[in-house]
Amino acid sequence: MSTMEIPYKTYLGEDELPTHFYNVRADMQTDHAPILHPGTLQPVTVADLEPVFCTELVKQELNTTDRLIPIPEPVRDFYRMYRPSPLIRAYYLERALDTPARIYYKYEGGNTSGSHKLNSAIAQAHYAKEQGLTCLTTETGAGQWGTAMSMACVYFDLDLKVYMVKVSYEQKPYRKTVMQTYGAQVIASPSETTQIGRKMLAEHINPNGSLGTAISEAVEVAVGTEGCRYVLGSVLNQVLIHQSVIGLEAAAAMEKLGEYPDVVIGCAGGGSNLGGLMAPFMADRLAGRRAPRFIAVEPASCPSMTRGRFAYDFCDTGQVTPLAKMYTLGNGFIPSANHAGGLRYHGMSPILSQLYHDGHIDEARAVEQSSVFAAAEQFCRAEGTLPAPESSHAIRAAIDEALAAKESGEEKVILFGLTGNGYYDLLAYQQYNEGTMTDYIPTDEDLERGFATIPSLPGIQ
Amino acid sequence: MSTMEIPYKTYLGEDELPTHFYNVRADMQTDHAPILHPGTLQPVTVADLEPVFCTELVKQELNTTDRLIPIPEPVRDFYRMYRPSPLIRAYYLERALDTPARIYYKYEGGNTSGSHKLNSAIAQAHYAKEQGLTCLTTETGAGQWGTAMSMACVYFDLDLKVYMVKVSYEQKPYRKTVMQTYGAQVIASPSETTQIGRKMLAEHINPNGSLGTAISEAVEVAVGTEGCRYVLGSVLNQVLIHQSVIGLEAAAAMEKLGEYPDVVIGCAGGGSNLGGLMAPFMADRLAGRRAPRFIAVEPASCPSMTRGRFAYDFCDTGQVTPLAKMYTLGNGFIPSANHAGGLRYHGMSPILSQLYHDGHIDEARAVEQSSVFAAAEQFCRAEGTLPAPESSHAIRAAIDEALAAKESGEEKVILFGLTGNGYYDLLAYQQYNEGTMTDYIPTDEDLERGFATIPSLPGIQ
Repeated sequence: MSTMEIPYKTYLGEDELPTHFYNVRADMQTDHAPILHPGTLQPVTVADLEPVFCTELVKQELNTTDRLIPIPEPVRDFYRMYRPSPLIRAYYLERALDTPARIYYKYEGGNTSGSHKLNSAIAQAHYAKEQGLTCLTTETGAGQWGTAMSMACVYFDLDLKVYMVKVSYEQKPYRKTVMQTYGAQVIASPSETTQIGRKMLAEHINPNGSLGTAISEAVEVAVGTEGCRYVLGSVLNQVLIHQSVIGLEAAAAMEKLGEYPDVVIGCAGGGSNLGGLMAPFMADRLAGRRAPRFIAVEPASCPSMTRGRFAYDFCDTGQVTPLAKMYTLGNGFIPSANHAGGLRYHGMSPILSQLYHDGHIDEARAVEQSSVFAAAEQFCRAEGTLPAPESSHAIRAAIDEALAAKESGEEKVILFGLTGNGYYDLLAYQQYNEGTMTDYIPTDEDLERGFATIPSLPGIQ
Repeated sequence: MSTMEIPYKTYLGEDELPTHFYNVRADMQTDHAPILHPGTLQPVTVADLEPVFCTELVKQELNTTDRLIPIPEPVRDFYRMYRPSPLIRAYYLERALDTPARIYYKYEGGNTSGSHKLNSAIAQAHYAKEQGLTCLTTETGAGQWGTAMSMACVYFDLDLKVYMVKVSYEQKPYRKTVMQTYGAQVIASPSETTQIGRKMLAEHINPNGSLGTAISEAVEVAVGTEGCRYVLGSVLNQVLIHQSVIGLEAAAAMEKLGEYPDVVIGCAGGGSNLGGLMAPFMADRLAGRRAPRFIAVEPASCPSMTRGRFAYDFCDTGQVTPLAKMYTLGNGFIPSANHAGGLRYHGMSPILSQLYHDGHIDEARAVEQSSVFAAAEQFCRAEGTLPAPESSHAIRAAIDEALAAKESGEEKVILFGLTGNGYYDLLAYQQYNEGTMTDYIPTDEDLERGFATIPSLPGIQ
């Protein structure tokens, strides 16, 4: 261990921060199917989306031609606070596994929001500020995205209203506290501040709230308020564009070390983390320069890629958003109470869905919760850092790949994304320690009930 | 901001990790008064302490001659996981304050234990392993030290028993979970596992526990178990020696930048953080090479340096430990329920006490809790990171120094220690946000009650 030929942590200099985001759509032979307006079933336009999202972000959402999009200087200034994030050679985990594989991970949990979400939050806040907006709205479940947006908005002096699912608001008061400390207004949803909220409260519909309702309230306020727009932290193409900063840094750091990944592994919920991490490596693969393998890891309890259908579906359970063609379990699929809240989404980023459909993402792998926490425990005892449950899905697959390399004697280079820390996920660790953690795999009947909510669109494939 | 002449974060390379700890006692013209055996009132010897602490640590505790103590390679290997820690130029805070001062801070909160405590924990675990011990015991209140020891012991495959004050055990179950995840056995104190614990439970004495009782239980088990010793995370000379790694890295990083601090600021509870941060700068001052100012910041609710007495006192409220000459409020002083739990100690490191008494620490400053949280809020909104309440005492003083520099137009260079993050201190932030935080300054009568518990030792000064 004392003879590490390369450092444990590789930090790029701040002068090596990427200057441009990468937009993989410009390199895809087959673009994802167009997003459809839910009323007209026609491809959405800038004009359709502008009332909801800020204009530059709408343009990025629909941008199929620009490979590189400049990172604005104020965003790079903010990035200097916590980026470039470290690329870590997992020497201590390698030793624990006794594997010939060389394992690297890109750690995004070193900022106060606790995950990679901040990378897109600050970009979205910047474009809003530049447009002259004064206010943003969003929703949050467990609170990581809301925290990231709070940090971003206080930096640009923007008002932020966060609609927080009421059950989380009450059960996780400290997440609310962090957002408030960064100046955000946090509102338990459903609330009296919107028409939809008042209706749900009056009619006693889902009084504990849901992400779907919180989104509806946040959008209603954004659309109805002068100088205000709505922001979202995953699934969207614009988010994958911003998150490419993860992969661009990882590729630059690996190049410095004379390394290149044989396999790139990311957990996949909405797709923002995997899409970001793999960006430059996918560019290499699409151009035929290199041939890294890509593995998307999802919870067995919410297996959109491994057991879902590739079909047009609503992005929300309320069936009010546009329709996207993606791997989906059906917008009405109800995932079990898995501890990796960030991976509990019925669909998958349209970009990642298309890449998987076309075979550019080699493998989707579903893993069970208890095996994920076994990997998390092994990881933290070896490498120090307590990982988020979401990230631990990628750890599980990385360990399995490293053990397979041990079996075969291969000196494989493995890169995975450690998207966040687990400091706010200790209830899950407690259940794991106490042996009360349960696994849940949906039955075929469960899946059929979800698939039944995928809309039937005659003439559209 | 885009034209930062020096980087925001300065990371030394892992090959620049310090090779030696620094022991300031070797450079002090006047050593601190000897630690006295509580029974004989004679200076303690290696033989007195060996049954409790591991032998190398006892030697360090009593070492007055060696300026430099080699950092063992296995400790340096572990340090590579999270060290060198970043030295940060607080550009964003400087901008918010509009000050000509250049503010730097050394951030120690980037590891899962959340603070600088891990620096000494891993050294103590190493020396125990080297001695062939198999088990360590310690106590923990809020849990940071216990978490650090858990991470250290799992690394060296040592059993660890943590006696956790029962009220914390019950109110902060997640702290327990983290320690268990890293393999520690966590026991609510008072417990049935020790004589003292059984006695207190049987007689219904302080059933909620206290740090004093937890220490007694941990020491009883260590002394009574083959191959087992006790470890402590602050106050002791050995801990200051290990924490010198903070200052040594800070000095090396500042030298690279062509900077030297005019003033060095640390929060002071037991003294481990300030003692560590100031180490090389104090060496310069004691040798007459440079003349930095030193400021120790303590809570107004527990003002050992600003309002205490310089006298021999017990290190614990149970009056069973050796006696140290130090600034003390009396071992029976009961600090109010300040949120900076790490600063609620009646005494102060004997080394720091002597340096302050001799004028080498220029100023001790007591600050009130609400002004500390105002500084914490201003800091995190500007610099991103949510600080620990303890560290925020140093932030308060650094901001005040920077504002004074603005007033006078001085380009002062300020260095302070950001010892930890505030992720587990959100109840305090919640109270601050809600305006229900209270300040508490002990009255002269409160202090007199504490002073009355300082032992009277005829013939000993």
